[in-house]
Amino acid sequence: MAPFHPCQPEFCSNCDRFAAWYRLTGTEQEAWARARELCLEQTVEFPGDLLPAGHIVDEIVARVDRVEPVPGADGAAWLALVTFLNHDTGFELTQLLNTLFGNISLKSGHRLERLVDCPLMWRTFRGPRFGPDGLRRRLGVLHRPLLCTALKPLGLNADQLASLAYQFAIGGIDVVKDDHGLANQPFARFAERAERCAAAVLAGSERLGRPILYAPNITAPAGRLVERAHHAKRVGAGALLVCPGLVGFDAMRTLADDDDLDLPILAHPALLGSHVVHADSGVSHRALFGQWMRLAGADAVIYPHHGGRFGFSLQDCRDIVDGASSPLGDCRPTLPMPGGGMTLARVPELLRFYGQDVALLIGGDLLRGGPDVAATCRNFVAAVGGRAGRKQGDAQDLGP
Amino acid sequence: MAPFHPCQPEFCSNCDRFAAWYRLTGTEQEAWARARELCLEQTVEFPGDLLPAGHIVDEIVARVDRVEPVPGADGAAWLALVTFLNHDTGFELTQLLNTLFGNISLKSGHRLERLVDCPLMWRTFRGPRFGPDGLRRRLGVLHRPLLCTALKPLGLNADQLASLAYQFAIGGIDVVKDDHGLANQPFARFAERAERCAAAVLAGSERLGRPILYAPNITAPAGRLVERAHHAKRVGAGALLVCPGLVGFDAMRTLADDDDLDLPILAHPALLGSHVVHADSGVSHRALFGQWMRLAGADAVIYPHHGGRFGFSLQDCRDIVDGASSPLGDCRPTLPMPGGGMTLARVPELLRFYGQDVALLIGGDLLRGGPDVAATCRNFVAAVGGRAGRKQGDAQDLGP
Repeated sequence: MAPFHPCQPEFCSNCDRFAAWYRLTGTEQEAWARARELCLEQTVEFPGDLLPAGHIVDEIVARVDRVEPVPGADGAAWLALVTFLNHDTGFELTQLLNTLFGNISLKSGHRLERLVDCPLMWRTFRGPRFGPDGLRRRLGVLHRPLLCTALKPLGLNADQLASLAYQFAIGGIDVVKDDHGLANQPFARFAERAERCAAAVLAGSERLGRPILYAPNITAPAGRLVERAHHAKRVGAGALLVCPGLVGFDAMRTLADDDDLDLPILAHPALLGSHVVHADSGVSHRALFGQWMRLAGADAVIYPHHGGRFGFSLQDCRDIVDGASSPLGDCRPTLPMPGGGMTLARVPELLRFYGQDVALLIGGDLLRGGPDVAATCRNFVAAVGGRAGRKQGDAQDLGP
Repeated sequence: MAPFHPCQPEFCSNCDRFAAWYRLTGTEQEAWARARELCLEQTVEFPGDLLPAGHIVDEIVARVDRVEPVPGADGAAWLALVTFLNHDTGFELTQLLNTLFGNISLKSGHRLERLVDCPLMWRTFRGPRFGPDGLRRRLGVLHRPLLCTALKPLGLNADQLASLAYQFAIGGIDVVKDDHGLANQPFARFAERAERCAAAVLAGSERLGRPILYAPNITAPAGRLVERAHHAKRVGAGALLVCPGLVGFDAMRTLADDDDLDLPILAHPALLGSHVVHADSGVSHRALFGQWMRLAGADAVIYPHHGGRFGFSLQDCRDIVDGASSPLGDCRPTLPMPGGGMTLARVPELLRFYGQDVALLIGGDLLRGGPDVAATCRNFVAAVGGRAGRKQGDAQDLGP
């Protein structure tokens, strides 16, 4: 995929178009045909021969800029660079996603591969409020990998979850999140659970002498989402867990853009997997878990790392990191938070793969080390070269 | 797939569980293993060997009731009947969808095939406010197929769209909807477009002497969705077009449940296609476009019929009709609205396939018959045995 910037005279003038690469299957001729169909389908959804001459054909219909072979695909897969008029999106995230992949999602053989950076279009979206740096500043952990875990299993009551949260906190886990399956079930109602767990994490944080963030799962019916977010803030949550596949990407963006909330957002991939499970259709790992999450304001993105319970490849994970960090308008990066069955034994390998710019998410495995959960957590902290508590001169954790 | 009702003593007591069929690939042994993994993944998301004894293992974890071969799959695909505790969903649509397919969406080889009817669980959801009968009553068309078209292409201004809407209305189209790509673009802002098009359709309706419904696309950023719906109502829209793949299924349900709105909802499949394009993963056509749409309150569901621009098979379309109409708690049916490149020439074939219980959606082809669009619409009306206007004694259109 050659570097491309749509703001070059040969593509557009005055930056009024943005661009995306699509992966298309078939022969080169078929790929061109698919790309041209896509241009109509994703904009005017109208027979090309019936379109009136003028600005609709000249500007509003998307354009195929070029088609290139996918390296190593032996002429059976192609990359098409398509440009769209910025105005087609109405500068709303719902319509942007519709323009990029709405109707085409119903066809196989088309995959949204990546958004091309654009100085104007992506500035429509503020992106992550915190990003990795802001999240680190809230935690006072500026350099080492961040550590995250999840409160589970579903079925524990609020007191049991809070007790576990306290153990995680005094063990030195930086971010203690609800499992994404904790919603508002009768055995641990949202309001009470958030209150108890936030209090427990704050108590652990005080004992430890450094900030630990609790992220309740606020994923909720449309009319209750904002209310749950603000309840979480009121009771002392330090972050929020949101499933954009369940509430909509723009609902997450709304929370990220809410100045009164001002909380980091962790995005969970529930119900989004169908986009990525087949290489010939859907949305790429890079575009979905990297770029879309970023435009929708995720400060960290949770996804299953290779070799756990799910089938993501190492290349998929690399692509997510790339999408979460490569230039995209003025958007801050999103911090990769790989999980999905990770274990303490795999920490060295994860560190080799991700380096320091990562939040490692280990769930069930922290409960495998026996009843002293805090001790197991301290092993996790030690494995990334950190210290559970604040100690004099611990510049690594406190930063400059 | 044998008939199954979870409210039988051998499955549960007091109707506290609901059930769904999943299609799993592999050998029978692999299918059992996949099904058991699914039970953990979709509820406790926790290693089975670490679960505490008691109600979590006994009730909260989903259960595999049985595994049966998929007929004709030669032992390479299986149907697993899985039951879930009703309480696991917290009786919220977001968490229900998460329970059914949240994390599992990230794996291939699992497909949600169908929800099993259940007298208790599905009563949580009101479902369509109108359904086919209510929609027909609003139109005064009780028996023949309904006719629907879309205002397009993107790029026309509000006056041009309104002018087209008027032609459709006086031609006798029952439901004139916005194309789902009309959002809030500068060339036809939502508020003005909805106002002009609603007025045009009302004028056409008055001239014709019978109700014609205009359905603006209210799909919008999260904070503006309800506002657009109410604006549409205020300016005289008779229905609403919503894309649940863009705004979230529960956001659509909220609109359906809004007593102050009291408008039929047409659901559009944008961005949902990735779930259905591969038979071995995702959500089946029946469950997604039939059952989920119903639980989320769609009075009519738009999808591409076989042989148009998209690849749905005739069996896929049959399955959607089945999911949209078979018993599901107290939910009314959802009216199938097949489109996606249908033409006037195909109306007889569509009628043979769907019978009378359908709304036929023809878009671009109505503009292929020359400048007298209303005349082309009258051909469409005649093709389904209707009449454009109200005539004395026209019992078919007016009902009893």
